[in-house]
Amino acid sequence: MLVPRLIERKRDGLALTAHEWRALVNGYVAGQVPDYQMSALAMAVVWRGLEPGELAALTDAMRRSGVSLDFAGWATPRVDKHSIGGVGDKTSLLIAPMVACCGVAVPMISGRGLGHTGGTLDKLESIPGFRTRLSLDEAVSQVKRLGLAMLGQTPEICPADRKLYALRDVTGTVESIPLISASIMSKKLAEGLSGLVLDIKTGSGAFITDPAQSLVLARTMIGIGEAGGCRTVALLTAMDRPLGHACGNALEVAESIEGLRGCGPPDLMEVTYALAVEMLLVAGAAPDRAAARARLEATVRSGDALDRFTRMLEAQGGDPAVATDPARLPRAPVTMEYRAVQDGVVAEIPPRKIGHAIIALGGGRARTDDAIDPAVGFVIPAKPGDRVRRGDLLAVIHARTEADAEQARTALDEAIVIGDRAAPLPLISHRVTAVGSEPLG
Amino acid sequence: MLVPRLIERKRDGLALTAHEWRALVNGYVAGQVPDYQMSALAMAVVWRGLEPGELAALTDAMRRSGVSLDFAGWATPRVDKHSIGGVGDKTSLLIAPMVACCGVAVPMISGRGLGHTGGTLDKLESIPGFRTRLSLDEAVSQVKRLGLAMLGQTPEICPADRKLYALRDVTGTVESIPLISASIMSKKLAEGLSGLVLDIKTGSGAFITDPAQSLVLARTMIGIGEAGGCRTVALLTAMDRPLGHACGNALEVAESIEGLRGCGPPDLMEVTYALAVEMLLVAGAAPDRAAARARLEATVRSGDALDRFTRMLEAQGGDPAVATDPARLPRAPVTMEYRAVQDGVVAEIPPRKIGHAIIALGGGRARTDDAIDPAVGFVIPAKPGDRVRRGDLLAVIHARTEADAEQARTALDEAIVIGDRAAPLPLISHRVTAVGSEPLG
Repeated sequence: MLVPRLIERKRDGLALTAHEWRALVNGYVAGQVPDYQMSALAMAVVWRGLEPGELAALTDAMRRSGVSLDFAGWATPRVDKHSIGGVGDKTSLLIAPMVACCGVAVPMISGRGLGHTGGTLDKLESIPGFRTRLSLDEAVSQVKRLGLAMLGQTPEICPADRKLYALRDVTGTVESIPLISASIMSKKLAEGLSGLVLDIKTGSGAFITDPAQSLVLARTMIGIGEAGGCRTVALLTAMDRPLGHACGNALEVAESIEGLRGCGPPDLMEVTYALAVEMLLVAGAAPDRAAARARLEATVRSGDALDRFTRMLEAQGGDPAVATDPARLPRAPVTMEYRAVQDGVVAEIPPRKIGHAIIALGGGRARTDDAIDPAVGFVIPAKPGDRVRRGDLLAVIHARTEADAEQARTALDEAIVIGDRAAPLPLISHRVTAVGSEPLG
Repeated sequence: MLVPRLIERKRDGLALTAHEWRALVNGYVAGQVPDYQMSALAMAVVWRGLEPGELAALTDAMRRSGVSLDFAGWATPRVDKHSIGGVGDKTSLLIAPMVACCGVAVPMISGRGLGHTGGTLDKLESIPGFRTRLSLDEAVSQVKRLGLAMLGQTPEICPADRKLYALRDVTGTVESIPLISASIMSKKLAEGLSGLVLDIKTGSGAFITDPAQSLVLARTMIGIGEAGGCRTVALLTAMDRPLGHACGNALEVAESIEGLRGCGPPDLMEVTYALAVEMLLVAGAAPDRAAARARLEATVRSGDALDRFTRMLEAQGGDPAVATDPARLPRAPVTMEYRAVQDGVVAEIPPRKIGHAIIALGGGRARTDDAIDPAVGFVIPAKPGDRVRRGDLLAVIHARTEADAEQARTALDEAIVIGDRAAPLPLISHRVTAVGSEPLG
């Protein structure tokens, strides 16, 4: 294999073979293909893209660079949900126990927040004692026992992806739908899944703001999943405003627990149910959408979902009393109400501005090695389109200090626009499968 | 300077500032910018190109990474000629002494042959004893004394270009007109020139085969030269057949000496005079084209040009008797005539096939570290368009062994096509300057 010739072929817009992609990935992990060749190749991929066969081969080679969760001989269907990242998006915490209660196992490996977006691991770690660092054996055994486990990446999974991602991060080659898709899907396929549901965020607060590109991303990831033998479906959901009310790690856990009690904000519950329904369907655990929804609602009504969540807390070292008493979560010393300064309609609540305000409060990360304060953030009951009067409560700020809270108030002044109309995106706009996409808005 | 942000800007098609290019080049030479960032940036440049200001800044930074020939305080104009590489192109050997005889100094730093193209250094080194490794001080002092020096790259010149070129060579980033132009021009500008004439080869045997791209290359290099304070002009000349008759290092030196005696093949002499005329004009050493041509022809007729060439041989350790007795050059033990097998018109003599046949004879390089035999090659008096009869002499093969000669004969069977018509490119098709280009064909 002459690596420069392969780089040239990709540079000239030609496809490499599956064999060549495997050799490149294996050679890269083994140190035979140097960083400087891989980064040039990555830039050529940013430029020219990857064909479906190349994507499948690259993803498969990255997955095989490490180990996968081993469920051999265990017949229970396993399905995960993966979101492309948003603000206020705590659906994972609701979905995993609900779906597990329906007899579908959820081995969920999640990430941390970065930039304006939150991360499931950070939310979970706001629960006193909760361990997200499980060994793969622990995770498999817990999934078999409880039907779910929520953990972080381990070094054994997809080392090629980790090495390549670190390289892309410093060579301007992160922003590539094929490379993003291969990176995510290599890790998801290492979970040993039978099905996967993707939550592709659209709108100003999404990682990809162009709706057409969101669809491309969905189709690309679905293509990889299906090629890897994993039934994959995507929903395109709105991220032009935060999802639910709570934004900030412990605040979001508290809201998730409300959701598991049946008292979550309507938009959060709607997206949660929609994603969970798709999970039951790809798992073959319900005959149709209505039946799936009924089963899922029953897990909440009966208290089974909250119970399953509590048992996961116990199993992973978290304080189980949090599930009945969310006041045990970390609480910020300062709370400050934020009220409407005029009559009108809430025109927009841009997630990026909210996310950056959370970082300013100390609750998010601008860099991967930043420490975070789990308690701070916002609860924002207001939604775009709401008619409000001067003095109405729009949000509550949770901060470490009065000064921080004042700064956050200024940030909300800039973020929450009151005007005379709003044009929010439909909450769930498209359902995308291997055979096509259907608008749902 | 955050290098990933700079790579991203270039990736997105935006221009970097002159300051940023300087910082990148200096950081790269100092080892602060790693290879893996530079190769990703190079691929982004292959993709997006460089704007004129970026090109000037990159070239200038590469030139300043090393030393330049120092002619400070010496008023004599200095002009070089640079060719993009061809087969049978020995114009440098004629031009340097002719132009030097007209009072214009020629500090000529040349390269070696690679692939199907020959290189001036290899031709010169076929002269017994000739040293192409001069120190820069030696070169400057010889140019001041004799009006010319012909030497190879030295480590002090453009180390940034050398490091970057080695990286591009293994990362699929060689084929980029801006990067090729910056690489060549950084070295040319390090010669301390007042003017430069470029011989941009066009046609099937040229490095760039698309005539439109040849014009782009010419304009790009001229833009860099003029921005660097060096008057730069380009001629586009035909490389759809070899230039002159001799192809092979010692054979080309012999033909150059014939040319300096006034007996060179017409096409070689025409291109030589055309380039040399431009050199005198950019140097301001002749009032017009006709006067320049007359001065140059006089240097040949008087024997001054051959005498100057002889003095350069002496100065650089070469056997000066070669100039009067080319039989002292290395000679191949086997010569074999190649004759027309049918009546007709010589339709084509593709330079690439001739160049590859020279490599097969041992006279060229497939890889930069290949050793070469200076004596072997071809003398091909036939030209596309010549009407020939069966049995006419088309070429003479110079080989180490009978078997090599037989193999070369087979190569010529494939290369020299006899048909019923020919459509050779005009020998000199365009003259390109900073203000535009004029067709000359």
